[in-house]
Amino acid sequence: MRAAIRRGPAIIVDDYELPPLQNGQVRVRTLHCGICGSDLHAVHHFEPFIDYGRRAGLLTGRIDPNKDVVLGHEFCAEIVEFGPNTEKTLKEGALVGAFAVNFDDKGAEGVGFSNRYPGGYAEYMVLTESMLLPVTNGCPSEQAALVEPMAVAVHAVNKADHGDSAYMVIGCGPIGLAIIAELKARGLGPVIASDFVAERRAIAERLGADVIVNPAEHDPHGHWIATGVPYGPTVYPRVQTQTKRAILFECVGVPGMLNALIDAAPRGAQIIIAGVCMAPDQIEPSMAINKELELKFVIAYSADEFRQTMHRVCEGELDVTPMISRIIGLDEVPATFEELLTQPRAAKVLVDPRR
Amino acid sequence: MRAAIRRGPAIIVDDYELPPLQNGQVRVRTLHCGICGSDLHAVHHFEPFIDYGRRAGLLTGRIDPNKDVVLGHEFCAEIVEFGPNTEKTLKEGALVGAFAVNFDDKGAEGVGFSNRYPGGYAEYMVLTESMLLPVTNGCPSEQAALVEPMAVAVHAVNKADHGDSAYMVIGCGPIGLAIIAELKARGLGPVIASDFVAERRAIAERLGADVIVNPAEHDPHGHWIATGVPYGPTVYPRVQTQTKRAILFECVGVPGMLNALIDAAPRGAQIIIAGVCMAPDQIEPSMAINKELELKFVIAYSADEFRQTMHRVCEGELDVTPMISRIIGLDEVPATFEELLTQPRAAKVLVDPRR
Repeated sequence: MRAAIRRGPAIIVDDYELPPLQNGQVRVRTLHCGICGSDLHAVHHFEPFIDYGRRAGLLTGRIDPNKDVVLGHEFCAEIVEFGPNTEKTLKEGALVGAFAVNFDDKGAEGVGFSNRYPGGYAEYMVLTESMLLPVTNGCPSEQAALVEPMAVAVHAVNKADHGDSAYMVIGCGPIGLAIIAELKARGLGPVIASDFVAERRAIAERLGADVIVNPAEHDPHGHWIATGVPYGPTVYPRVQTQTKRAILFECVGVPGMLNALIDAAPRGAQIIIAGVCMAPDQIEPSMAINKELELKFVIAYSADEFRQTMHRVCEGELDVTPMISRIIGLDEVPATFEELLTQPRAAKVLVDPRR
Repeated sequence: MRAAIRRGPAIIVDDYELPPLQNGQVRVRTLHCGICGSDLHAVHHFEPFIDYGRRAGLLTGRIDPNKDVVLGHEFCAEIVEFGPNTEKTLKEGALVGAFAVNFDDKGAEGVGFSNRYPGGYAEYMVLTESMLLPVTNGCPSEQAALVEPMAVAVHAVNKADHGDSAYMVIGCGPIGLAIIAELKARGLGPVIASDFVAERRAIAERLGADVIVNPAEHDPHGHWIATGVPYGPTVYPRVQTQTKRAILFECVGVPGMLNALIDAAPRGAQIIIAGVCMAPDQIEPSMAINKELELKFVIAYSADEFRQTMHRVCEGELDVTPMISRIIGLDEVPATFEELLTQPRAAKVLVDPRR
């Protein structure tokens, strides 16, 4: 079958052999698969990406970066074949999402972050039946493919300690935008959204962000006081009055960003770190101490969060369509990776391998 | 009067002129004053210490490091004179602790971290009457002087999200030991305590730490599994079972320690950072993300926490005496600073300027 393959530090389109179905597995046709920031990291930073996974005991730690990998874990697919010992609760032709993990005679293995199981940048995938989540309510596959990154955002928002809070989303890529969507779906705000890219700011506005900032023109932190968060030098001794707390979502993941937030955040802020910074980074712990900041690093989602997000997207409770910038075929994947790595303008780009 | 003075990057004993009493101020005789890690930082790292304070809007940001400073903010003192417009609710001779902040015609100003108001390494201090906390129940001044660092520990323990948790205290200096005391006073545990210094480990044991480790001989993280915390590579996909969560208190504050904990901590751990690292420090955000770690930076205490800690120490609910290593006179302050900066062996050293 045709696939966009990570081979060395490049993406090429070539033939890829789908592994045979084992017990409990199904073959699916990929309908849409989103390009994720982690996929982009996997091109030029695959070695540290794998090494961090290995040290943390994740499945990504088992990848051999010198062998082919078909990326893509944000997919909606259609069941086309049932392997041996499957339950067949869903029918052939059913649309599904899935946790990107397979089980076979060797144990657990990633899908899309694996040398054995191709991800969604391929015409077909092998998935484990028990990991499938049905797409319901006639939800189009374009939207269902957004459930995975949306679940990442739901998880990040769940991790925040909401109270009388004001929010800032730094970086309006797909995860930042999905966080804005989730905050507004819950009626939380005000939300300050910051991104250098006009297209992304426009989507943040459509999703309901209350204050939209181009950080090349204005300091987003200049908006805290208007949102009700005390900002500026501390009046000492600290008087314990009821004041709004700042919750920041870091969705950029480049070196220096974390300390820029430590330096700029209001006293007592909570910073949820969803942006994956692949390099070691320098921070000033004394600033974080003097301001009593809280840093929560987040990744992925629980099974429940994924299921609930699928339900909410399918039921139309979460509108993910504003996040879709465009849909491309496999042949366009290499150039699109290059574009997203060097001059990101788009939000979510979906791959449709049938094109 | 005699005082141990921070003059340039050194501590010297010399005469120091006590400022005259202004409205609402009292003069007190210092009975005991503890040596704090922040005082030690103020000898050789005063410029960054002040700069971090300035950037965070703290009173410490106003100090001129080129002028004399009499350090010491962990004190118990005796009222000897009331200034103009004082309430005199407490009587002459009453023992007091105090928030180390004065108010005068120029506004708020630190005590002990100030070029104007000497701290407790001096025979006398000027304090603001409304900032005084009475020492009750005949509590000895040696113990009352421990209320301030104990309040720091109470605040740090209050900041942790206690549930079904196991604890590790990294560094059994005064704050680490006070955290152990507070955890055990609340019936929390098990507590793993780690320090290179035998005397400090012995105090940790007296205070009730459950597992005591010399990190030169054993890896303290090797004890997680015995405390009920899952440790080691993740089994994927994550199954949400009820498992103990690790809460770590970082009480060392040297560069590299934070990332050593990020690298070694169990998945999902909460790290409370009480150790003040004066230099910029490098961390690996990807490790913190892969493990979903939470970093809470803490400093000082609220007015309520200080008051309640004073009450509990005076009532004998918190026994701070095991933390007192020795009591010295002003003449011994320079050599003791040198010792604590280069070869720390002791826990809390108290200065008694009457000696």
